[in-house]
Amino acid sequence: MWRLYQFTLCPFSRAVRLALAEKGVVFELIDDFPWERGETLTRLNPASQTPVLENGQIVLADSSAILEYFDETVERAPLIGASPVERAEARRLSAWFRERFFSEVTAPLMRERMWKRIVSREMPDGRAIREAARAAEAHLQYVESLLLENRWLAGPTFGLADVQAAAQISVADYLAGLDWAGHAQARQWYQALKSRPSFRVILGERMEGIRPPAHYDDPDF
Amino acid sequence: MWRLYQFTLCPFSRAVRLALAEKGVVFELIDDFPWERGETLTRLNPASQTPVLENGQIVLADSSAILEYFDETVERAPLIGASPVERAEARRLSAWFRERFFSEVTAPLMRERMWKRIVSREMPDGRAIREAARAAEAHLQYVESLLLENRWLAGPTFGLADVQAAAQISVADYLAGLDWAGHAQARQWYQALKSRPSFRVILGERMEGIRPPAHYDDPDF
Repeated sequence: MWRLYQFTLCPFSRAVRLALAEKGVVFELIDDFPWERGETLTRLNPASQTPVLENGQIVLADSSAILEYFDETVERAPLIGASPVERAEARRLSAWFRERFFSEVTAPLMRERMWKRIVSREMPDGRAIREAARAAEAHLQYVESLLLENRWLAGPTFGLADVQAAAQISVADYLAGLDWAGHAQARQWYQALKSRPSFRVILGERMEGIRPPAHYDDPDF
Repeated sequence: MWRLYQFTLCPFSRAVRLALAEKGVVFELIDDFPWERGETLTRLNPASQTPVLENGQIVLADSSAILEYFDETVERAPLIGASPVERAEARRLSAWFRERFFSEVTAPLMRERMWKRIVSREMPDGRAIREAARAAEAHLQYVESLLLENRWLAGPTFGLADVQAAAQISVADYLAGLDWAGHAQARQWYQALKSRPSFRVILGERMEGIRPPAHYDDPDF
C-alpha cells in the first residue's frame, strides 16, 4: 500500500490526497513535519519536503510529478484534459496556484500564523499578513474571471487546476487569510468542492494549536 | 509560426528554447522584459511573465506546461522518459531546478547582478550573493550525486531534467554565480550540453550591460 508522508496544513500534500481520493487509490497517512528534519523524509526526498509517496518499491516526490504519475497509471477520474491545448491550460493554472498563490498567499500565512505560533513562538508580522490578504483578493478575482468562462477552472470538467487551487485555497482559508465577500462565483465553485467526499475528510482535520474560522468546513458558508 | 516572448537571461525562456530546438520546432524570438509591464505580455499571460509562446491561435504560458505540450505533440526527441516511474523522476527533477535552484540561486543572482545593475541602479547586496553561492555549491554537489547513477540527470537519455537544469545553471553561470572547481562530473555533463547546437545559440547571446565570465560559452571550460 502507498504511504503518504504529509502534514495537515501542507497544501501540496492536500493536492495529492485530493487527487488520490478522486482516483480511488488507497493510501495510508504518515504525519511528518519537514521542519523537524526527520531521517525518513530526508532519505526519501533530498528536498526534505512533503509530500512523499512510497510503497516499498517506488518513491514519488513533488505534487506535480505525483499527480501526473497517477493520471498516467489510473484511468478513473482523468485530471488533465483531453486535447494538448486543454492539458497545457490545466498545467498553466496548476503552476499558477502551486507557485504564485503559494508564494504570495499560502507561504506567508503559514509562516506568520502556523510556524510562528507552533514552532518559533514569535509574534506574527501584521504587514506580511495584510500583504497576503491583498494578494489573496487579487487571486480570488482571477478565479472569478476564470469561472465566467468555464464551469471548473480550466474547462468543463473537474481536474488538475481545481485540485491544486483547492489545496492552496483551503490552507489559506484555514489560516483565516481569505475574505469571500463579493466573490460569488468563486464561492460557488468552492462550495461544490467542499461537498466532494475527497475534500470533506481533509476539511474535518485540525492542526494542533491552530483553530480555523467557523466557516472553514461549512459547505454552505 | 510560433513567437516566443522572452529575454536572454530568463531561465524559463531558455528551457523552452532548448526544448523547441531539440524538437526541431521553428520559432521567432520577441524580446520582452516583464518588469516593463508591456501591454502584449500582460494580455497574453495574466502572470505578466516570460516565456509566452503564441501562434495567432494558441497561447501557451509556463515553461513546464509548454514543454509537456511539445512532448505530447512532437514525436522527435522525447523529453520525459518511457515508463511512468521514469517520467515521475524527470518531473521531480524538473521541479527541483525550476523551483529550488531558481529561488535559492538564479533569482537572487538575477536580482543582485542583473536587476540592480540595469534597472534599479542599486549596489548589489554581498551577503545575498554569498548565500546564493553557498546554495549553488550544494546544488552542484547534488548534480554530481545524480550523475554517479546516470549518464543524464534523470536517466540514460537527455531530457526534461537536463533542459530545466541547463536553463537555470546557464543563467547562474552567466552571472558569475558558480564555482565549477571540484565538480568534475557536473562539469563533464555541462560540457556535453554546451556542445549541443540547441544550446550554443543561447550561449552566444549577451544581455546589454552585463558581461559573462570568460568560461561562460567555452565548451572546454
